[in-house]
Amino acid sequence: MIYSLKEIAELIEGSIEGNPSKLIHGIGALDSASPKQISYAANEKYKDSLKISNAGAVIINKNLKKFCKVDAILVDNVYLAYSILTHKFKFNQNIENLKYSHLLNYSDSNISGSSLIGINVKIGKNTIICANCVIEDNVTIGTNSLIEPNVTIQNGCQIGNNCVISPGAVIGSEGFGNAKNNDNKWSSIAHLGNVIIGNNVSIGANTTVDRGTITDTEIHNGVKIDNLIHIAHNVIIGEDTAIAAKTGIAGTTIIGKRCMIGGGVGIVGHLKITDDVVINATTTVNRNITKPGVYTGFVPLMLHSEWKKVGIWLTKLDKIASFMKIKLKDLR
Amino acid sequence: MIYSLKEIAELIEGSIEGNPSKLIHGIGALDSASPKQISYAANEKYKDSLKISNAGAVIINKNLKKFCKVDAILVDNVYLAYSILTHKFKFNQNIENLKYSHLLNYSDSNISGSSLIGINVKIGKNTIICANCVIEDNVTIGTNSLIEPNVTIQNGCQIGNNCVISPGAVIGSEGFGNAKNNDNKWSSIAHLGNVIIGNNVSIGANTTVDRGTITDTEIHNGVKIDNLIHIAHNVIIGEDTAIAAKTGIAGTTIIGKRCMIGGGVGIVGHLKITDDVVINATTTVNRNITKPGVYTGFVPLMLHSEWKKVGIWLTKLDKIASFMKIKLKDLR
Amino acid sequence: MIYSLKEIAELIEGSIEGNPSKLIHGIGALDSASPKQISYAANEKYKDSLKISNAGAVIINKNLKKFCKVDAILVDNVYLAYSILTHKFKFNQNIENLKYSHLLNYSDSNISGSSLIGINVKIGKNTIICANCVIEDNVTIGTNSLIEPNVTIQNGCQIGNNCVISPGAVIGSEGFGNAKNNDNKWSSIAHLGNVIIGNNVSIGANTTVDRGTITDTEIHNGVKIDNLIHIAHNVIIGEDTAIAAKTGIAGTTIIGKRCMIGGGVGIVGHLKITDDVVINATTTVNRNITKPGVYTGFVPLMLHSEWKKVGIWLTKLDKIASFMKIKLKDLR
Repeated sequence: MIYSLKEIAELIEGSIEGNPSKLIHGIGALDSASPKQISYAANEKYKDSLKISNAGAVIINKNLKKFCKVDAILVDNVYLAYSILTHKFKFNQNIENLKYSHLLNYSDSNISGSSLIGINVKIGKNTIICANCVIEDNVTIGTNSLIEPNVTIQNGCQIGNNCVISPGAVIGSEGFGNAKNNDNKWSSIAHLGNVIIGNNVSIGANTTVDRGTITDTEIHNGVKIDNLIHIAHNVIIGEDTAIAAKTGIAGTTIIGKRCMIGGGVGIVGHLKITDDVVINATTTVNRNITKPGVYTGFVPLMLHSEWKKVGIWLTKLDKIASFMKIKLKDLR
Repeated sequence: MIYSLKEIAELIEGSIEGNPSKLIHGIGALDSASPKQISYAANEKYKDSLKISNAGAVIINKNLKKFCKVDAILVDNVYLAYSILTHKFKFNQNIENLKYSHLLNYSDSNISGSSLIGINVKIGKNTIICANCVIEDNVTIGTNSLIEPNVTIQNGCQIGNNCVISPGAVIGSEGFGNAKNNDNKWSSIAHLGNVIIGNNVSIGANTTVDRGTITDTEIHNGVKIDNLIHIAHNVIIGEDTAIAAKTGIAGTTIIGKRCMIGGGVGIVGHLKITDDVVINATTTVNRNITKPGVYTGFVPLMLHSEWKKVGIWLTKLDKIASFMKIKLKDLR
Repeated sequence: MIYSLKEIAELIEGSIEGNPSKLIHGIGALDSASPKQISYAANEKYKDSLKISNAGAVIINKNLKKFCKVDAILVDNVYLAYSILTHKFKFNQNIENLKYSHLLNYSDSNISGSSLIGINVKIGKNTIICANCVIEDNVTIGTNSLIEPNVTIQNGCQIGNNCVISPGAVIGSEGFGNAKNNDNKWSSIAHLGNVIIGNNVSIGANTTVDRGTITDTEIHNGVKIDNLIHIAHNVIIGEDTAIAAKTGIAGTTIIGKRCMIGGGVGIVGHLKITDDVVINATTTVNRNITKPGVYTGFVPLMLHSEWKKVGIWLTKLDKIASFMKIKLKDLR
């Protein structure tokens, strides 16, 4: 899939500043895009990256033009334009591939006869694919791994050695990203990254791991992930971290090494959690954690009759402080 | 499935006030039931609807008899009687249908050879059914939609054009409703409604959408739903609303248009959320939201050592107010 | 699978106190292990159980030797040694079984032609196995039960009469247990228990129920479990309890009879919840509940602008109390 700047500009309804016949082979992040890739900068926050980007071209609005030293396509709504362009670089965007008519239903020594394996799939020695799995094209699985029944591993994902993927897990589902168009409707972003899973990783039953937008979602060696967990696009989980059931980690958050994350935890997007952090069950993590330690945040259990009385005052804590003339600086 | 009032009264152990040979073709809601349908009113809260109901008959207890102008079946436990009756009007209540022996394993141009398609299924042009899906009887899917691997779409559900149903998602599972019988045991309610999904909708991996009890669960055009989300029976989600992963929406709640609901949010049942509401991640929504705006409710992250000290006082906020002689009216 | 103490000691790098040729047939809990089983005591907390254990042998560290009256294997890291040993007693630890090449794809009167059934599976009269299920070896299912599409039931699990297992559910997945080794890496524990489900139980779509470590996970008669719920290893759920969607129950917690647990609740491990307890949606249960009643714990919904002001003071409640010179004993 190679397009000229002219073709791309027509697709996203932009105007070219530069060479219309320059050929673009893919989409890259602003910081790492090669001269054969196109990138985008959605607002002034990215102006410093834009100034030094090596991308072959960038999609920007006219306000950012002065920071741009490479070819550009000018549009009004950069993120919308980017969302439209992603679909042109997505694998499998034709019916023949998507219907998996080429998936093989065969009996390899270690593959259950009812699992379907795509083309260009590599499966290492002693790895077992159990019943009713779907392993899409271009997937790589290392040695001694166990893929349990009813698992879906989508196009291009990589799984290391000695891994266990439990029943019903989905590896490589589309990330959740959508741009708003001018009619206030969502325009979906095709996710072009993969999921890269290291060695000695276990993924629990019915857990979902989304693929990255441009770069990959990464789960490093020795990570243990329980059931019904959601790992969003571009999350990176450091070595030997363990995560209990029903936790969700939003997009682009980076978790350190040897963390222990309890069940039902919610971690919002774009955070950094350092190494050796323990987060207790059902806690919401809404800020970076820069120091190792044990963290918690939930309302202790009460009789409902008590909770109703407490709740009224809880929502007025700032007004109580004001009424009592307490100032934050008074507290220590 | 047509039953006389006499047959129904025998099934639910009630006494008929009216014509025993009247024929009933289905169950309807009290407000919308036709003269060919039976409905029910569980308590006095429904007396006004009962007075003007056009149902062919209603199941009530004797206290409601005075409000009823149509044929009635009198029982002691109305909800229990209703739960028993639902199973008589459920599709597929015979082994031949339930075992899906009639599901077709065929190679249509756009259907993976390993997916099973029921009878009376309509699949639109350019729609793709990926590997290992189960599409039960009477399902309708529009054009240009993508049903990814290992998806289950149950009897009678409808999916529009340009939709994506991600791997492992379940559309049309039974709602969670049970009546207590006289021995304090649960009597399940068969859910007779469907799931109706509009155009340009995406449903995430391993997300579940339950069918409605009598009327349908509805997901309107342009809605984007992430992974591992639970949509309960009779929820209605308005156009262009986006919902992030691991959120749950309980039964009969209605969500407006263009809402943005964060990850891990819990919305309790029977609520109304207006248009253009933003709810931050992990918030519990326990009341109607009538004004657009941004809403939040969770405990900020603390060191566990701090949380333990804070928690003690948190559960005593009303007592602190009382001790300090603060009154709610003092606060502004 | 029978091993001598000598073989086991070599595997876990321990030294034998007792008869090296004693034969061990399995792993048992310290309190209930038979003379043919080996058990373990990880620390002094278990010294009383150790003193009266009937196990054939125990794995302990040298500090516990004085409390032990049976044969012992001494190691430095007892839990790590136990984790390694579990894998020797796990069923199916050979490729031939794991790849399910022996699973049958046949058309019994009540089994969908596309479901795979292992060896030594017992399926009762009128029970229906829907499409694309995987029923592994040694599973028992009673009469009149319905196993919906895409369900996975793993080795040795038992399901009673009149049960419904909804689409995508996983019964008998591995529990989440890992020991740390001396390099700070996780060593997984193979779970040797099963899942035992009684009669009249329903399990929701994409719900996961993990098998027990040594003894079983138990779901008693009449329990109703909604979608996307996680039931961890060795949880016991009492008769006629109902649990709404997206709740998680951590390992070894025991729930009483006739409880009603709302959606999105998190219950931490090793707790006891008595009979007739109601827990409202999204509450965290972090302590035993010994009295029936209604319990709650979450932050009431606020406008985000209000929540930001409230949150600052919420995390300083202990300091506010200190500043105001309030003592806990003053509050009533």
